Amino acid sequence: MNNGFCIWLTGLSASGKTTIAQGLLRHFENNRHIEAMDGDEIRKGLSRDLGFSKEDRNEHNHRVIFCSKLLARNGVIVVVALISPYRETRAYAKEAISNMMEVFVKAPIDVCIERDPKGLYKRALAGEIKQFTGIDDPYEEPLNADLIVETHKETPEESVNKIIERAKAMGFL
Amino acid sequence: MNNGFCIWLTGLSASGKTTIAQGLLRHFENNRHIEAMDGDEIRKGLSRDLGFSKEDRNEHNHRVIFCSKLLARNGVIVVVALISPYRETRAYAKEAISNMMEVFVKAPIDVCIERDPKGLYKRALAGEIKQFTGIDDPYEEPLNADLIVETHKETPEESVNKIIERAKAMGFL
Repeated sequence: MNNGFCIWLTGLSASGKTTIAQGLLRHFENNRHIEAMDGDEIRKGLSRDLGFSKEDRNEHNHRVIFCSKLLARNGVIVVVALISPYRETRAYAKEAISNMMEVFVKAPIDVCIERDPKGLYKRALAGEIKQFTGIDDPYEEPLNADLIVETHKETPEESVNKIIERAKAMGFL
Repeated sequence: MNNGFCIWLTGLSASGKTTIAQGLLRHFENNRHIEAMDGDEIRKGLSRDLGFSKEDRNEHNHRVIFCSKLLARNGVIVVVALISPYRETRAYAKEAISNMMEVFVKAPIDVCIERDPKGLYKRALAGEIKQFTGIDDPYEEPLNADLIVETHKETPEESVNKIIERAKAMGFL
């Protein structure tokens, strides 16, 4: 039986987390069970009662961590793509999920604002969205990430390959 | 890669769901990934915000169903042990989780009251717990369960074996 593990992608909105998660899914889809914890399906399934305040996002992250723990301990590769701006949340995740690598998906905030694929930064800068990470809510950069990928300097394929190599070096693959 | 599926155990409190779940865990622990959705760990992980009203139990079940779906589609055998008293909830589970067998863990209410391992029936009958299934809240018996096990007539081993045989007949094993 395979051992599962968790690839935790943290970074600003539009830093490239979803693109990398999709690349990882494509890489493993034919030879490993892999699940991406990303986007609306997870919100609807676990947290349809929650909004986007700090408390609500923390609670959502708590549930995602629990779900990821169950998947990882059952042989699944779990790719979490969550802004997860607080060090405390990520430290808790690392404690709860036995095999976890923290990947900082790094891009300067002005690059993220320029990309803005969902128009969220525009709305946050106009004051229409409150407590938006990087605008009026902090992003606490990882101090000891297992890996940093810089999406303004490398292609998604390069980031995916770096993650796979690091997972091997950590004994997860 | 193995195909996962879900064994959904529904029945009154003290009908024997946890005992059967533990028997299934022991049966598969060495050759399959298996996870039991049962008890306090699931409550703490997914629903620490919820109580035991009808609405809260429904919401808890919704989250358990989502989690079970993710596990089952990733090769895991998921054993859900939930009173799950409402037909609507179980029908939703069967729709959401592609490979699911509904097992009615059946025992007469007076047998369950007699067993009462956690003293819950005693408290419910004394009016200390409200909306307790079988006492002042209904248990809607399955009309088309994939299997019925009668825990007042058979041993836990017999129930476990019947479930495994039924899973094979349904093409899950």
